[in-house]
Amino acid sequence: MMIQIINPNTSTEMTRHIGDSARQVAAAGTEIRAVCPQHGPKSIECAFDETIAGAALLDVIRQGEADRVDAHIIACFGDPALAAARELADAPVIGIAEAAFHMATLISARFGIVTTLSRTLPASEHLLHQYGCAHVCAGIRATDIPVLDLEQIDSESYQRLYRECQLSVEEDGAGAIVLGCAGMSNLVAQLSAALPVPVIDGVAAAVKLAESLNQLGLKTAKTGQYGQPLSKPFTGRYQHWSR
Amino acid sequence: MMIQIINPNTSTEMTRHIGDSARQVAAAGTEIRAVCPQHGPKSIECAFDETIAGAALLDVIRQGEADRVDAHIIACFGDPALAAARELADAPVIGIAEAAFHMATLISARFGIVTTLSRTLPASEHLLHQYGCAHVCAGIRATDIPVLDLEQIDSESYQRLYRECQLSVEEDGAGAIVLGCAGMSNLVAQLSAALPVPVIDGVAAAVKLAESLNQLGLKTAKTGQYGQPLSKPFTGRYQHWSR
Amino acid sequence: MMIQIINPNTSTEMTRHIGDSARQVAAAGTEIRAVCPQHGPKSIECAFDETIAGAALLDVIRQGEADRVDAHIIACFGDPALAAARELADAPVIGIAEAAFHMATLISARFGIVTTLSRTLPASEHLLHQYGCAHVCAGIRATDIPVLDLEQIDSESYQRLYRECQLSVEEDGAGAIVLGCAGMSNLVAQLSAALPVPVIDGVAAAVKLAESLNQLGLKTAKTGQYGQPLSKPFTGRYQHWSR
Amino acid sequence: MMIQIINPNTSTEMTRHIGDSARQVAAAGTEIRAVCPQHGPKSIECAFDETIAGAALLDVIRQGEADRVDAHIIACFGDPALAAARELADAPVIGIAEAAFHMATLISARFGIVTTLSRTLPASEHLLHQYGCAHVCAGIRATDIPVLDLEQIDSESYQRLYRECQLSVEEDGAGAIVLGCAGMSNLVAQLSAALPVPVIDGVAAAVKLAESLNQLGLKTAKTGQYGQPLSKPFTGRYQHWSR
Amino acid sequence: MMIQIINPNTSTEMTRHIGDSARQVAAAGTEIRAVCPQHGPKSIECAFDETIAGAALLDVIRQGEADRVDAHIIACFGDPALAAARELADAPVIGIAEAAFHMATLISARFGIVTTLSRTLPASEHLLHQYGCAHVCAGIRATDIPVLDLEQIDSESYQRLYRECQLSVEEDGAGAIVLGCAGMSNLVAQLSAALPVPVIDGVAAAVKLAESLNQLGLKTAKTGQYGQPLSKPFTGRYQHWSR
Amino acid sequence: MMIQIINPNTSTEMTRHIGDSARQVAAAGTEIRAVCPQHGPKSIECAFDETIAGAALLDVIRQGEADRVDAHIIACFGDPALAAARELADAPVIGIAEAAFHMATLISARFGIVTTLSRTLPASEHLLHQYGCAHVCAGIRATDIPVLDLEQIDSESYQRLYRECQLSVEEDGAGAIVLGCAGMSNLVAQLSAALPVPVIDGVAAAVKLAESLNQLGLKTAKTGQYGQPLSKPFTGRYQHWSR
Repeated sequence: MMIQIINPNTSTEMTRHIGDSARQVAAAGTEIRAVCPQHGPKSIECAFDETIAGAALLDVIRQGEADRVDAHIIACFGDPALAAARELADAPVIGIAEAAFHMATLISARFGIVTTLSRTLPASEHLLHQYGCAHVCAGIRATDIPVLDLEQIDSESYQRLYRECQLSVEEDGAGAIVLGCAGMSNLVAQLSAALPVPVIDGVAAAVKLAESLNQLGLKTAKTGQYGQPLSKPFTGRYQHWSR
Repeated sequence: MMIQIINPNTSTEMTRHIGDSARQVAAAGTEIRAVCPQHGPKSIECAFDETIAGAALLDVIRQGEADRVDAHIIACFGDPALAAARELADAPVIGIAEAAFHMATLISARFGIVTTLSRTLPASEHLLHQYGCAHVCAGIRATDIPVLDLEQIDSESYQRLYRECQLSVEEDGAGAIVLGCAGMSNLVAQLSAALPVPVIDGVAAAVKLAESLNQLGLKTAKTGQYGQPLSKPFTGRYQHWSR
Repeated sequence: MMIQIINPNTSTEMTRHIGDSARQVAAAGTEIRAVCPQHGPKSIECAFDETIAGAALLDVIRQGEADRVDAHIIACFGDPALAAARELADAPVIGIAEAAFHMATLISARFGIVTTLSRTLPASEHLLHQYGCAHVCAGIRATDIPVLDLEQIDSESYQRLYRECQLSVEEDGAGAIVLGCAGMSNLVAQLSAALPVPVIDGVAAAVKLAESLNQLGLKTAKTGQYGQPLSKPFTGRYQHWSR
Repeated sequence: MMIQIINPNTSTEMTRHIGDSARQVAAAGTEIRAVCPQHGPKSIECAFDETIAGAALLDVIRQGEADRVDAHIIACFGDPALAAARELADAPVIGIAEAAFHMATLISARFGIVTTLSRTLPASEHLLHQYGCAHVCAGIRATDIPVLDLEQIDSESYQRLYRECQLSVEEDGAGAIVLGCAGMSNLVAQLSAALPVPVIDGVAAAVKLAESLNQLGLKTAKTGQYGQPLSKPFTGRYQHWSR
Repeated sequence: MMIQIINPNTSTEMTRHIGDSARQVAAAGTEIRAVCPQHGPKSIECAFDETIAGAALLDVIRQGEADRVDAHIIACFGDPALAAARELADAPVIGIAEAAFHMATLISARFGIVTTLSRTLPASEHLLHQYGCAHVCAGIRATDIPVLDLEQIDSESYQRLYRECQLSVEEDGAGAIVLGCAGMSNLVAQLSAALPVPVIDGVAAAVKLAESLNQLGLKTAKTGQYGQPLSKPFTGRYQHWSR
Repeated sequence: MMIQIINPNTSTEMTRHIGDSARQVAAAGTEIRAVCPQHGPKSIECAFDETIAGAALLDVIRQGEADRVDAHIIACFGDPALAAARELADAPVIGIAEAAFHMATLISARFGIVTTLSRTLPASEHLLHQYGCAHVCAGIRATDIPVLDLEQIDSESYQRLYRECQLSVEEDGAGAIVLGCAGMSNLVAQLSAALPVPVIDGVAAAVKLAESLNQLGLKTAKTGQYGQPLSKPFTGRYQHWSR
C-alpha cells in the first residue's frame, strides 16, 4: 500500500525526518510518500499557522487521491483540516494526535503529553476534549522549545524535553508519554530508552493505523458528515477547487 | 466604531445581505463594513469549504487591522478560523455561532438550532460541545436548504424552515430559536413574527457583542494562546504572511 | 432604555457604587436605576445570604416591571434568583456571573476568577458547571477579603487582590480575569491598568448585554420554563404575591 | 431521634400527607415533626415559587435547630435552599430529590423520573446535572398534573400518572421510577403494586437517609462551604436574622 | 433483617473486623453475617485481585440468597462484581464505595478520599466517574499502606494515614473524608475524633443503606439490566453455575 | 508474532469462528492462537457471565505469557477483565470494544452500535462513557438475538440484525456500524456488502491494533496502575495464583 504522510508545514527537512520516522515502522509492503504543501508556513506553532497550513494541505490530499494513495496521514499534532480532508478523500485520513491518543489508551491507564510551546496548551486540551480523552490524560507539559529547533536538537533542549517527560511520569502519574509534535518523532527511540514508560510518537502510530484500516478494507464513510464536498465555484487562489 | 463583518464565503450578494442585517441593529455611532475574501468558495456547506474559507478570511482580518477597525465578526455559523483570527487581530473577533449561543442562554432555558444541511449536524454538535452549551440545547434540526437558496428564499423552502422552527418549540421544548446560518439573517423578522419564541440571528447578536466589548474597552488578551503569531517564512500563495 | 440594576444585598453604599460602575459604561440613551431590596442581608457571602436576598430581590423585580424598566440586572456574583426573576419579568434579566463568563470567553482562551471568601469556591465551581464554562476556566482564587471591605478597600487588601490576579495569569495561565464580586466593580480600572490581561467586571458586562438584548428586541421566552409563575395564594410576609 | 420534615409550601393538607408518608417508613425510635413555613406559596411549581419558599423554610430550619431536632428534610423535589439550610443547621439536612436519586441508583441501572408540570423539565435536568446523575437517568416525563391536585387525585389524573410511569419503563428502559413531587408520596404504594419496577418516593428515602446519618453520628461539616453563615445585619422582614 | 456483608478477600481476620464495624452501627433488629469467599486472594490491591475476588464472591451471594438474607454488602472499595451480584440476587446489593459517596454528598460540598496504594488512584477516579461524583470530589490521596497492614496498624502508618486526611482537608478543601478501604473501618472513630470534618466508612454507610432499602421495601429491579442471569451451561470450576 | 485471541466464553465453536475471523485479517507473519478458558459460561450475555468469564480468562492470559505470546485480545464486547489482564501480562492486551471504537472514530463522525440483548444497553453505554466515546456515538440498538444463535444465524435473525444496522444509518445518522458482539465477526463481510457505511468488527480491529503495537515495540507500562499484581496467598480454586 501507499501511505501519503503530509507534513503540513513547508519545512522540507522536517518532511524528510517525518518520512524517515514513518519508514522505520512501516510494514514490508508499505510505501511511504512524505510530502509537504507548496504553500504555507515553515512551522506550525499556533492556530494561525494551523489554519493556513490546513487549507494548503488539502491540495496535497487531492494530489494523493489523484495518485491513488491508500491512506493519508496529517503529521501535525493539532490534526489540522482533518474533517475537511476526510470529506475530500476516498482513502482514509488519520491525524497524529488522535493516533497517539488511541495507542496510548491501549497501554496505559493515564498518559501524559509533552509538547512544544506553552501557548498551545489550551489547543491540546481542546484536542483531548474533542477526542474524549480528557479523563485519561495525566497532564500536558510544555517545553517551550520552538518546533524547528527539534530538527537538530541541542543537548540543553533535549534535557528540557527529557526532564518534562520524567516529571510527567513522576509528578503526574503518566503511564505513557505522548510526544506533542511531529518534529519529535526522531527522538522517540532515545526517549524510550531513557524513560521507564512507553513513549508514543503520533507519526509512527498513524502509520500503523493507516495500515490497519487498509488491511481491514475500512475507508471513511462517504455518507453523512464526511461525504464528498458539494460542487460549487471557488475564486482567486482557490479557483482550482471549482467544480 | 468600525465593525468589519466578514462573510467568509465569496458570495457578494450574501455579503451585502449580511451587511444590511448588521446595519439594522447597529448603534448610531457604529459603522459596518461588510466584506468577503477575494479567494474561496461561493458558499460554506461542509468542513472542506470552511477550511478553505478560514484561511482566506485571515487576509481580510489583516486588511481590517491595517484599516484599524475596532472589531471583526466572522459571519458563518461554524465560526471558521476564530482562534487564528484572534491571534492575528488586536481588535476583538467574534463568531456568530458563539454570539447566538450566548444571547440564547440569556433569554431561554433551552434553545433550539435550525440549520441548513443534515450533513452539518455533527459539526453543530461539536460547536455546542466546544462552547459548553450542549446541556442547554433542546436539539438541532436540519432543513436541507442549500445555503445560497436562502438569499432569495422561495415559499416552499421558507415553509420548511418555519416548520422546523415550530417543531423545535413544540417537540423539543425550545424556548428560543438560533438560526444556524448567516444566510438566514434576513429572515429573522419574519420568523420572529410567526413564532411564539424569540428568534436569534448570530449576525445581529455578534454586532451587539462587538459594540459591547468596544464600549467596555475589552480586547483579546495578547498573552497566552491568542498572542500574535510568531514570525516565520511562508511560501507560495501565502508568502505575503512571511515576517 | 431604562436598566434596573439590583444589588441584592441591602448596602446602600455598595448599591451606589454599583450604579456608578454601571453608568460609566452605559450608552448615551441608557438610564441606570440602581436599587437594592428593602429586606435582607447587608452583604452576600454564603448560600444562606444568597437565599434570603434571592427572595427579597423579587420584590424589586416586580417594582421594576411596574415601572416598565427595559431590563434587570442581578448584581451579585452568585446570580441569585435568576430563574425566578426571568419567570416574573417580561423584560430580560441578566446575572453578572453569566455576563462576565460570556464576555471572558470572547476575548480569552482561558479565564481566571478572583473572588472573595474561600468558602464560596464550591459555589463558583457550581456556576461554571451550570453555565458550561468549567473547561475554559483556568482556575478560581479566593482573597478572603470580606465583601463590605471592598467598598473602601485598604492598601493591603488591594495588594492581596492584585497578587491573586497576577498568580491567576502567571500560574494558572489565565488570559483574562473575571472579578468574582459586584463589590469589585470599582476596582476594574485600577486592576486593568496593572495587569497584562483584560479584567472583566460582571456589572459592566451585564449592562452591555442588557443594552444588546434591548436593541435586538430580544426578551425572555415566556413559554416553557420561564413562563409567568402560576397564580396561587401566598401567606404571611409573602401574601403580596397572591394572585 | 426527631426528624423535622419541612414541606416548603404552605399547604397544611400536603404537610399532613407528607408527615403521614414519613411516619409510615420511620423506624421505631424516630419521631416525625411535619411542618411548613408560615410564609410563602400554597404550592411550588416553578422557580419563582421555589425561591420564595426557599427563603421561608429557613425560619423553620432555625426553629428546628432551637428545638434540637436531629435532622431536617426539605420535602420538595427541587431541593430548595438546601445549601443555605446546611449552613444554618448543625443537624444534617437532606433534600428529597437527592435522596430519591441515591436510592434509585442502588437498585437500578437506569431510573426514570415522572413529575408534574412540563415547565419544570429543565429544572429536573438541572438537578440531575448537579447531582451527577444525568448518565443514569433513563428520561424525565411530565404529567402536567398541578401539584395541589395530587392531594386528592382523581381517577383520570391517576391514570395519566400511571401511564407515564409505564412508558418510562417500556419506552425509556427505566428500571425504577422516581416520583418527582413530594405530593405524590401517598401514591407510592398504589403505583408500586401496579408497576413491574420499584417506585421511589423521595420523602420516604430521605427519612431513611436521615436516620442513617443520625445512627452513624454524621453531621454536615461545618468547615468550608457549609460553615455557619457569617454574622451581619439584616433589614426589613428578615431582620430577625441579624446577628 | 439479616444483612450479609461480604469481605471479598479471604482474610478471616479482616472479615471479622468488618463484621464488628458493621455490628457497631447496625440497628436493633439487624443481624450481621460477615463472610468471605472460600476462594481468592488474601487482600485486594489491584484489578487482578479484584477480578478474581469478584468471581469468587458470587458464590457467597448465592449462598446468602439460599439463606434468604435481606441484603448483601460488598465490602471492598472497588465495588467488585456489583452489577453481577445485582443480577444474581433478589435482595438488594450495595457496594461500600457507592455507599460512602452517597453519604458524603449529604454532608459536605466536597469530599476527599484517602486510600491505600498509589497504583489504585486511576481505579478510584474511575469509580468517581462512573458514579457521577468526580465534580464533588476534592481529591484522592494515597498512603501506600498495604491493605493487610491496616488490620493491626502501627503508629507510623496511622500517622501517615492521619496526615493525608489532614492534607485533604487543608490543601484540597475536603469537607468530609471517605476512607478508601474496608480495612480502615476500624479506624473511623479514632480518625473522626482527630479531624475537624466527618469521616465516612463505607462499611457503616452501606449497612445503613441496606437497612433503609429493606425498611422501604425496595429491591433491585429484576427487569432490564439487573434481571436474573440467563440459564446456560458453565464448565470446569464454575459448573455449579450451570442451569 | 503470535497473538493469543481469547474468547472468554467456553464455546469452542465460537472460539473457532473468532480465530477464523482473526486469521482472515492477520498479516503474513502473524500467527493467531484462538483459545477459550476451560472454565466458565458457554456465552456471555450479562454482567454475571462477564464476571465469571473475566476471572476464568486470566488463566489463559497466564498461559499465553508462559508461551511468550506477543499480544492478547479479549474477544467479548464488554472487554471483561481488561485492566486485570494488563496487570498480569507483559505483552499488550486489547479489548474488542475499545478496538472497534478507536477504528470507528477514524472513519466516521458518528458511529452506531448494533448489539445482541436489550438488557446489555446500559453496559454498552457504560463502555462508551468509560472510553470517552459517548459524544461520537449515534446510538445503540439491540436485536435481542441470543449470542449463541449468531454462530449459525438463521435468515430471520440476520434480517433483524441487518434492519437495525440500516436504522442506525438512516434514523440515527451513523456513518459506521460497530458490531456489538464477537459472535458477529463472521457476518461482517455480508453486512458490509449490504450497507452503505463501513461495518467494524472488534475482533478484526483488535488484531490490527495488536500487530501495530507489536511493530511499534509498545507494551503496557508496568509502572502505575498496570504494574504486576502484588504477590500474596490465594486460596481454594484460585490457589494456583499464590506467589
